[in-house]
Amino acid sequence: MTTASQTLPKHYTDLCDFKREIGNLGSVAALVGWDQETYMPHGGARARAEQSSLLAKLIHERASSTKLGDLLAQCEADSSLNDPTSEHGANLREMRRDYDKATKLPSDLVANLAKAQSEAQDVWKVARTNNDFKSFVPALTKVMDLTKEKASCLKTDEHNELYDALLGEYEPGAKATEIEAVFTPLRDRLSAFIAELRDNGTPPKVDFLHREIPVEKQHAFGQAVTAAFGFDYKKGRLDTTTHPFCSGFGPGDTRMTTRYSPTNFPDAIGSTMHECGHGLYEQGIPKETGLFGTPLTEAISLGIHESQSRMWENMVGRSKAFWTWALPLANKHFDGAFDDIDVETFTKAMNTATPSFIRVESDESTYNLHVMLRFELERAMLRNELAIQDLPEAWNAKFKDFLGLDVPDDATGCLQDVHWSFGLVGYFPTYSLGNLNAAQMWETINEQIPDLDDQIARGEFGALLNWTREHIHQHGRRYTASEIIERSTGKPLSADPLMRHLESRVRPAYGL
Amino acid sequence: MTTASQTLPKHYTDLCDFKREIGNLGSVAALVGWDQETYMPHGGARARAEQSSLLAKLIHERASSTKLGDLLAQCEADSSLNDPTSEHGANLREMRRDYDKATKLPSDLVANLAKAQSEAQDVWKVARTNNDFKSFVPALTKVMDLTKEKASCLKTDEHNELYDALLGEYEPGAKATEIEAVFTPLRDRLSAFIAELRDNGTPPKVDFLHREIPVEKQHAFGQAVTAAFGFDYKKGRLDTTTHPFCSGFGPGDTRMTTRYSPTNFPDAIGSTMHECGHGLYEQGIPKETGLFGTPLTEAISLGIHESQSRMWENMVGRSKAFWTWALPLANKHFDGAFDDIDVETFTKAMNTATPSFIRVESDESTYNLHVMLRFELERAMLRNELAIQDLPEAWNAKFKDFLGLDVPDDATGCLQDVHWSFGLVGYFPTYSLGNLNAAQMWETINEQIPDLDDQIARGEFGALLNWTREHIHQHGRRYTASEIIERSTGKPLSADPLMRHLESRVRPAYGL
Repeated sequence: MTTASQTLPKHYTDLCDFKREIGNLGSVAALVGWDQETYMPHGGARARAEQSSLLAKLIHERASSTKLGDLLAQCEADSSLNDPTSEHGANLREMRRDYDKATKLPSDLVANLAKAQSEAQDVWKVARTNNDFKSFVPALTKVMDLTKEKASCLKTDEHNELYDALLGEYEPGAKATEIEAVFTPLRDRLSAFIAELRDNGTPPKVDFLHREIPVEKQHAFGQAVTAAFGFDYKKGRLDTTTHPFCSGFGPGDTRMTTRYSPTNFPDAIGSTMHECGHGLYEQGIPKETGLFGTPLTEAISLGIHESQSRMWENMVGRSKAFWTWALPLANKHFDGAFDDIDVETFTKAMNTATPSFIRVESDESTYNLHVMLRFELERAMLRNELAIQDLPEAWNAKFKDFLGLDVPDDATGCLQDVHWSFGLVGYFPTYSLGNLNAAQMWETINEQIPDLDDQIARGEFGALLNWTREHIHQHGRRYTASEIIERSTGKPLSADPLMRHLESRVRPAYGL
Repeated sequence: MTTASQTLPKHYTDLCDFKREIGNLGSVAALVGWDQETYMPHGGARARAEQSSLLAKLIHERASSTKLGDLLAQCEADSSLNDPTSEHGANLREMRRDYDKATKLPSDLVANLAKAQSEAQDVWKVARTNNDFKSFVPALTKVMDLTKEKASCLKTDEHNELYDALLGEYEPGAKATEIEAVFTPLRDRLSAFIAELRDNGTPPKVDFLHREIPVEKQHAFGQAVTAAFGFDYKKGRLDTTTHPFCSGFGPGDTRMTTRYSPTNFPDAIGSTMHECGHGLYEQGIPKETGLFGTPLTEAISLGIHESQSRMWENMVGRSKAFWTWALPLANKHFDGAFDDIDVETFTKAMNTATPSFIRVESDESTYNLHVMLRFELERAMLRNELAIQDLPEAWNAKFKDFLGLDVPDDATGCLQDVHWSFGLVGYFPTYSLGNLNAAQMWETINEQIPDLDDQIARGEFGALLNWTREHIHQHGRRYTASEIIERSTGKPLSADPLMRHLESRVRPAYGL
């Protein structure tokens, strides 16, 4: 990627400069958000909310300004810029997508939605605590109605379903029907797989994973592992928060966070490797060499972002090859805490598949069933095929169907996630898209780097990282998620690689 | 202080709301600057510079906007708001001062000065390294010429000297002649005092102060001391940076930083208590209960801010009463590192007065001579009574005169500070004003709280803090610095209290 050369017309360079200003404001907003979760004293919360909302306002004003619209229109009318395969062509296409999104929503709707979301979140917290879904129905109904209105505003001709407009916020260009076509076979095969494990498998021993490891030693180990993965600590950090996340602050600054429990080492190292995958993607996007603030220096979609986190967390981080290298390293950091555990036993313990009620605590296999259940239900709600008050019944029925468990109460069921109260519809699928994308890339990578396992077992991750840099990271938003999958793996997204991956890991762990 | 009630006219509440937006942007800019010094990875520096300059631009645009000017003019024309002793009257007076300052400088001059400063800083760095003042002359001349131009623009009728216009940036309302009237007797008495100590005194033993103390134990001790002082850690933090500072991030969030060396415990605890003084002032200003962003929720001046830091660092932090409480506490934190040192001996070691060349490394007494030397020289340069190329000679002569030492080279002499390369003229005096203000308040406080020493020796700092809250902090910028000194101590600023303070502490340390 090159920077805007002087041969490009002034309206294009002006456009990029303006986008850079928006990008810089975005970086500041990201820092403000990061600080809120990491170091901000409790007393700063109220002022911080004002600061964040002011920054959001400044960003939205610019992103929806007539100045931006006019520059964009000038560029689109300029025949010297309209080659869709060029960098500026791709930039203009994506800038148009962003601009339309920013300008399509009436400000009344935005304000009403913000208010309804804020109210619904408060109601949801109490409803979950009291296990009282009924009290949540009016607030959720209001949010859902406004969310449907939002979807109607965002809808474009290329999509035939309201759901796609919401999905497109997180997964630009994706269609619910396409996702359904991959999710449905995955759902059926996963359900059958889980049932088979339950009926015929022997769960591996996992108790040793909960041996007590001091938090600061876990932190040092996590830093050592992620540095070996290739995360550049001169251009980033790892801090501690209640909920792990990763945030790109613009060129040269990527911040990851994780969490630690003395008796839950797998959770910490899993979260750290997960966020590191996001961090490696952020560091691999050409923000420093490209035109920062323009789409080619931004991530494609949540589903692609999540593919990078899942790849390092799961494909790498639960493999026998990885623990061949990492277990001795862990023993060195942890004063031999796992000296009596061999790599085989350790790896099996990292690959359980046991149905449970809470999505965020579930394992690599069952996780996807939690997601697909939500996808089906929120799509039904959006299509008016499921009334809000019937949600618990539908949830519990599907849960029994997919995971074989009877949901004991709504707090453990359809009240567990904050997302819907916040109007986040179309967001859940991106989690499983991440797993699907990662598994499909993983098969291709292993074909193209036949000795990858040997490399990983030696603690060498460079070839793997380079593959992702070349096939995914460097392109920014030049291609859509589907295009990047087809370009990098040679085929459209399918459920097969993920199923093959899960079976190859979990079957041996259960002695099958 | 009350919030804007509904009886106030709309143009006033609009004005306050607009100031609040500027205040929030200032809080964000402060956070961005804090992060740069504390946690930002090195790789983020270039992008951070862009972010900071964008925020500065957004703030300046608003602070100098016709919108602000119009609202201000409307309020000033409103007879219901023109009582100068009311809160809104004081707010309007100070807002006018800020607005005039923000609008008086032609943008060409601002740009030229910024460029000249940036260049001069680079030249200065090399010149200092090479001990080559001559190479710095052209760049410094340029900055000084532009700084004079700036002073001409900022000059108001109430002041008779160009220097006052620059001073007013940091010490609103102060006059060079008034400062001179306090500085000159202080200078002469301090010089004589230093000479007397040198000729007749016996320097106290200080070697034990440099015993090795692990950094994390120093940090825990510093937190314990500042929490006892009354710093509210629910509304603030203490972090580590190369150069200690304190930054108020708006309501409920005040961040202090300090630095640690294993073998320089006095430097660390001194810096920590110093920044805590700033922090207590920031926490005491009614940002949460007042109209944040308006002058009554801001600090008066650097000289008053510095009085708060110096009071806790020096008046409290070098007193025998303080170490009566703090030495046992230190021994508890430091595994008895000073168990063999009695409070008397320890306190004496904290009260040395030895001439040295570098201002930032000098002690409580000699420090003021470093400042006054700079005040006289920069004032002479501004009056065209001293040519830039003659600065080294003038510096060295004054240094011999004030401190009795022969400056060995310019790197150790007139090249040591960054300030002038940055056009910071009129800034140095505020350091000594801080000491003078603190000493004068300290005498009054001790009169009004006769058992203060006993309280401090028990680790009780509440009455002292309350005095500063009531007499200084709560007023924000309602009064000028001179007014607050007169109101709180009953007399105009004088050199006597500082001399009495220093003599009472240092004489016994030198056996005089």
